[in-house]
Amino acid sequence: MSVKIITLTSDFGLKDPYAAEMKAVILGICPHAVIVDVTHIVEKFNVREGAFALASATPYFPNGSIHVAVVDPLVGTQRRSIIVETKHGFFVGPDNGVLMFAAEAQGVVRAREITSRRLMLPHISGTFHGRDIFAPAAAHLAKGVRPEEFGPEITDLIVPQFTKVMRSRDAVSGEVLHVDDFGNIITNIPGTNLAGFRGAMVQVDLPSQRQQMKFMGTYADAKLNEPLVLVGSHGYTEIAVNQGNAAERFQAEAGDKVTLARA
Amino acid sequence: MSVKIITLTSDFGLKDPYAAEMKAVILGICPHAVIVDVTHIVEKFNVREGAFALASATPYFPNGSIHVAVVDPLVGTQRRSIIVETKHGFFVGPDNGVLMFAAEAQGVVRAREITSRRLMLPHISGTFHGRDIFAPAAAHLAKGVRPEEFGPEITDLIVPQFTKVMRSRDAVSGEVLHVDDFGNIITNIPGTNLAGFRGAMVQVDLPSQRQQMKFMGTYADAKLNEPLVLVGSHGYTEIAVNQGNAAERFQAEAGDKVTLARA
Amino acid sequence: MSVKIITLTSDFGLKDPYAAEMKAVILGICPHAVIVDVTHIVEKFNVREGAFALASATPYFPNGSIHVAVVDPLVGTQRRSIIVETKHGFFVGPDNGVLMFAAEAQGVVRAREITSRRLMLPHISGTFHGRDIFAPAAAHLAKGVRPEEFGPEITDLIVPQFTKVMRSRDAVSGEVLHVDDFGNIITNIPGTNLAGFRGAMVQVDLPSQRQQMKFMGTYADAKLNEPLVLVGSHGYTEIAVNQGNAAERFQAEAGDKVTLARA
Repeated sequence: MSVKIITLTSDFGLKDPYAAEMKAVILGICPHAVIVDVTHIVEKFNVREGAFALASATPYFPNGSIHVAVVDPLVGTQRRSIIVETKHGFFVGPDNGVLMFAAEAQGVVRAREITSRRLMLPHISGTFHGRDIFAPAAAHLAKGVRPEEFGPEITDLIVPQFTKVMRSRDAVSGEVLHVDDFGNIITNIPGTNLAGFRGAMVQVDLPSQRQQMKFMGTYADAKLNEPLVLVGSHGYTEIAVNQGNAAERFQAEAGDKVTLARA
Repeated sequence: MSVKIITLTSDFGLKDPYAAEMKAVILGICPHAVIVDVTHIVEKFNVREGAFALASATPYFPNGSIHVAVVDPLVGTQRRSIIVETKHGFFVGPDNGVLMFAAEAQGVVRAREITSRRLMLPHISGTFHGRDIFAPAAAHLAKGVRPEEFGPEITDLIVPQFTKVMRSRDAVSGEVLHVDDFGNIITNIPGTNLAGFRGAMVQVDLPSQRQQMKFMGTYADAKLNEPLVLVGSHGYTEIAVNQGNAAERFQAEAGDKVTLARA
Repeated sequence: MSVKIITLTSDFGLKDPYAAEMKAVILGICPHAVIVDVTHIVEKFNVREGAFALASATPYFPNGSIHVAVVDPLVGTQRRSIIVETKHGFFVGPDNGVLMFAAEAQGVVRAREITSRRLMLPHISGTFHGRDIFAPAAAHLAKGVRPEEFGPEITDLIVPQFTKVMRSRDAVSGEVLHVDDFGNIITNIPGTNLAGFRGAMVQVDLPSQRQQMKFMGTYADAKLNEPLVLVGSHGYTEIAVNQGNAAERFQAEAGDKVTLARA
């Protein structure tokens, strides 16, 4: 028996039984699926934040994993339900970009619209396709239903756009992808772009603050409550405060422009 | 090997290891049980809210699932510990109503008081029967122990009362069952009671607000931040705001009386 | 197939995919591991709170369980990564004390530093050893890799210190270990130390309050909103308020000194 992993990412929050209902549907169809919550605390309706959380987690899952993401402000309208097949697994969710940051990183093979009613729940609500369409699709995939049985191939997928990283000789600009629960400010600037900055003082420009700090290896290389720049655990450049909350200190949030320059 | 699903619903919150201790006990007795959290963020001591969360989720679980709910302000007193057998599964928890909204929807076959000490943990605390009595009972059920081994049949169960739905020709009254994490106001009025209202303007009376809004199919049928009435994903009538928080806007909370009238 | 349980305890919070990444790594190495979250809402960088949560939960897990805890303010520095073998299972995490309150309660057999690079992820970040070192170590242990393959035995482990419990004939002093999500004030004073106080009035001294209350068996033995002293479900003496929040009422927090005296 090979194990099939299905992951769940959503903006449902944790107080309601919505994620549990998706799990119930999955286990009813594929009782041996192993279900892993990526997060259900994406900011509500924030497709980009959901896309980032999913893309952070997916590289660590085994090949063949099936990833479902439900940040879906247009549920029940004409927005399409899709399955994206990549070189390493499957992505299931709404066609609004939430899947594509992660899927493109894995290499997209092809995408399909989910149209086959017999692979959905018998009753489709207007407001909860996570339970009624995406969970059954993921469970049927886990059981071995072939992608072509779900619906026709499509090619015009919506892809989330992030600010392009701009490099000059002494500076790199990008944007804040995410503020994590520690308050670490995670940018979209790959650490490889700052290889020459290691150990140097860096001037960090955020919308509400300009600040100099050192580029170090890990949080505790800085003094307690001292800010620093480092390469985070996903390979992106981060602005942090040792045992403190950088996002609160520098009033930063996802989407902010950021420039790092050699000081 | 058939999979046995055990679900957990509680007001424990997520910061303490209490749910984990229940899972530990379950896995010690029945290592192959598949455990699904419904929610642990029921408002503390709010038996009706727990009853609603459980009843929302249970219809989606496979037959034979075992549902444990622990919202238990009278733990350690004379309130009974019970197992309720339904046409579709089992419910385990305190005899205070938290199980019965869900159990009655599945068709109650019979109920028993849990009295057999050999099916509990060796030491029974006065304050955590979820771990010491309900978790072992669920795990023993999952392993195939027959209900009659737990204790004697009982018939005088406590059942939670909700305001009855009242219908006239042009209006329906009921109450707010639940405010979900999106701020959607979920009433106990079945959507089938409002079949004639679809597409019409509806006057919504809540304790602190009277407001007209349209009865639509899904959230995004309304303009951004516009309120609407719709039938939610569990078949109940909901008052919502497209990408907004209806409960905050209309100062509504569980238990509020609500009347919907053709405007 | 025997089931291998791996538990996770951290200060990651629930909004980020960090715990999911640890689970992904574990399932990639040991697909049949059963993963249980103890909590991810330890106060950030609070090693003692993490140690307490872990020690509360571990006695209920089956023998052979593997417990990973990541409250790790010195990640990426010279602090060691360790495996502690006990009479009942394994503990994996940083050498900062977070494992040792639980491990010592199980009887420590021996400890090892994790140094073998082939049992870690290929790329070790400076900031997330939970994913890159501890998760793979736990998964390899679950698959049967022997402890001696991870690295050399060590003996000078860091152990968290709690205030010693002091007893006189009519009073017992200790400290607040934890305030749980209900607001119950859990002290480090074993209930067995107060056997003679049952049913008596007790004077409770906390830093900001002195109050008399009765020593009772369970919360609901007190009137609604009445404070009480009781022995909690882990055997420690607790100060609680029936259906209320004792920590808010008495302004208590973890680390506070507390004295209970016969009134």
